Amino acid sequence: MDSLTAPLSHRSYAILGTGALGGYYGACLQRAGLEVHFLLHSDYELVRERGLIIESPNGDFTLPHVNAYGDVRKMPPCDVVVVALKTTQNHLLPAVLPAVVKDDGVVLVLQNGLGIEEEVAQIVGFKRVIGGLCFLCSNKVGPGHIRHLDYNQIKLGEYTPHYRPGGITERMRQIISDFEYAGIPMQMAEDLLLARWQKLVWNIPYNGLSVVLNATTDELMADKYARSLVEQLMGEVVAGAAAVGCVIGDRFVQKMLDYTEKMTPYRTSMKIDYDAGRPMEVEAMFGNPVRVATASGADLPLISMLYRQLKFLDARSIRLSN
Amino acid sequence: MDSLTAPLSHRSYAILGTGALGGYYGACLQRAGLEVHFLLHSDYELVRERGLIIESPNGDFTLPHVNAYGDVRKMPPCDVVVVALKTTQNHLLPAVLPAVVKDDGVVLVLQNGLGIEEEVAQIVGFKRVIGGLCFLCSNKVGPGHIRHLDYNQIKLGEYTPHYRPGGITERMRQIISDFEYAGIPMQMAEDLLLARWQKLVWNIPYNGLSVVLNATTDELMADKYARSLVEQLMGEVVAGAAAVGCVIGDRFVQKMLDYTEKMTPYRTSMKIDYDAGRPMEVEAMFGNPVRVATASGADLPLISMLYRQLKFLDARSIRLSN
Repeated sequence: MDSLTAPLSHRSYAILGTGALGGYYGACLQRAGLEVHFLLHSDYELVRERGLIIESPNGDFTLPHVNAYGDVRKMPPCDVVVVALKTTQNHLLPAVLPAVVKDDGVVLVLQNGLGIEEEVAQIVGFKRVIGGLCFLCSNKVGPGHIRHLDYNQIKLGEYTPHYRPGGITERMRQIISDFEYAGIPMQMAEDLLLARWQKLVWNIPYNGLSVVLNATTDELMADKYARSLVEQLMGEVVAGAAAVGCVIGDRFVQKMLDYTEKMTPYRTSMKIDYDAGRPMEVEAMFGNPVRVATASGADLPLISMLYRQLKFLDARSIRLSN
Repeated sequence: MDSLTAPLSHRSYAILGTGALGGYYGACLQRAGLEVHFLLHSDYELVRERGLIIESPNGDFTLPHVNAYGDVRKMPPCDVVVVALKTTQNHLLPAVLPAVVKDDGVVLVLQNGLGIEEEVAQIVGFKRVIGGLCFLCSNKVGPGHIRHLDYNQIKLGEYTPHYRPGGITERMRQIISDFEYAGIPMQMAEDLLLARWQKLVWNIPYNGLSVVLNATTDELMADKYARSLVEQLMGEVVAGAAAVGCVIGDRFVQKMLDYTEKMTPYRTSMKIDYDAGRPMEVEAMFGNPVRVATASGADLPLISMLYRQLKFLDARSIRLSN
């Protein structure tokens, strides 16, 4: 199917968390003509009045009018509910999700880390969860003002109990066609768990070390000691994945290293959160993978050390900013 | 022998590095009536004019006149040459040491870390080296102005080739009697290598984590994640020591933990260096132990990770301060 000629769908989208990620994707969907409803918190008043501003190398645009909500109970039930909060906000999901997802709707989890779909499935049922992995460089630079920097691809995968490979389903194809219509490059994962572990190959070393060593990706790659840590951490992620039955080859690791070397110097999402005094996604990105892999017999000493360093820094950062 | 009634010795002392450590001990020796010669660098002019100021819980004192030298070639050869530089300055020793140590004199290495006596022995010969481990909290607060905070004990041990236990010698007793006469509590180690590894049980976790996590000792002990890292790092030091034949028991590790919990909140020496933009003693304190123990078959993943994190931070800190 050629997405450029696809008929405009009647699916409605709810965006939970209108920040750098949710705000960007939601705005792209609305610009393409889809019905989108945005849940906001601190930016609610301003976005309701003046909409969203998107800067992007693919073209800047503004949406003067968006369906903005400060209260989830005022939102209509939607076909696709996009979870775009930080995982540190996921304690809100049991109160938020049931109201906003249609009976035959689906929840699309666009968050980092491991095990989140499982948490969402316990709220809405396991047949209504799809995972999405975003490869996106984007920052919120002001209220309702998002600066997209680079990349925007999403990889979708069906959630099934115990993360058994869910294959490619019709509803995945439908969501993909909406996003592609909105100009987002999409990929399909037959095995969501494998895709999540693959993403951790990048996320664990770069997010963790960027915070602990106060460094951007290019600084880590340019120093032989930091780079050797990056590589060894990647090796441990591969070992952790193998322990739960996900095979990641050496070529993939090499691809991540090459890709990062060619990338624009980048401040990771965890570093951005840390610098802003926000809680970091330590449990989703480090705690869950360590626990799952260790329970399956893997030994991950370096990731476990990085996890504890981040827990220390996170606790102090939160204490200082309160 | 009662040190209070010991006859004043005729041994002369050279202090190489008149900072928080060398300045403090040298001043104590001179105050007790011993002949002391101080090598200085940036503080030379000021100390030559107005001497040294020591603040200490044991009693403040000033030495208005000291034998100050800005050039090692002007110093007289001494009986005991105290190496009190940072190990990051040890590249200077081949040029400095031979001139200042008497033919029958001895070099007393009061530095942190592992393997330094061996380097000194290659300069002055293996029969002229004694190691000393200082348990001292002291800062230099201005030129020639030292603030001693807590502890001041020194443990001496004879250096022998390959660090075989050197036992207790007469010249050790003589030096000890001088220091005790100057009010410094002294201990003797029959096995210098064991004493050095024991000291690393404290130095490696607290110095390393204090820099990487920007924390004082009490902050590390109060956080359960950081504390578990401290304990695991101590376990690796014990394993590294065992690999080279030094047995450190569990009781010793527990003693270090208890001791640190009771200690005044403390900024480690490595943290002080890092905060001041000075090079850190990463090689002496981390690089040498990792290399020696790994060559003997030990596996020290956490210490090796901490080493690489410190190398990254050290390189950047030096780059920024140049």
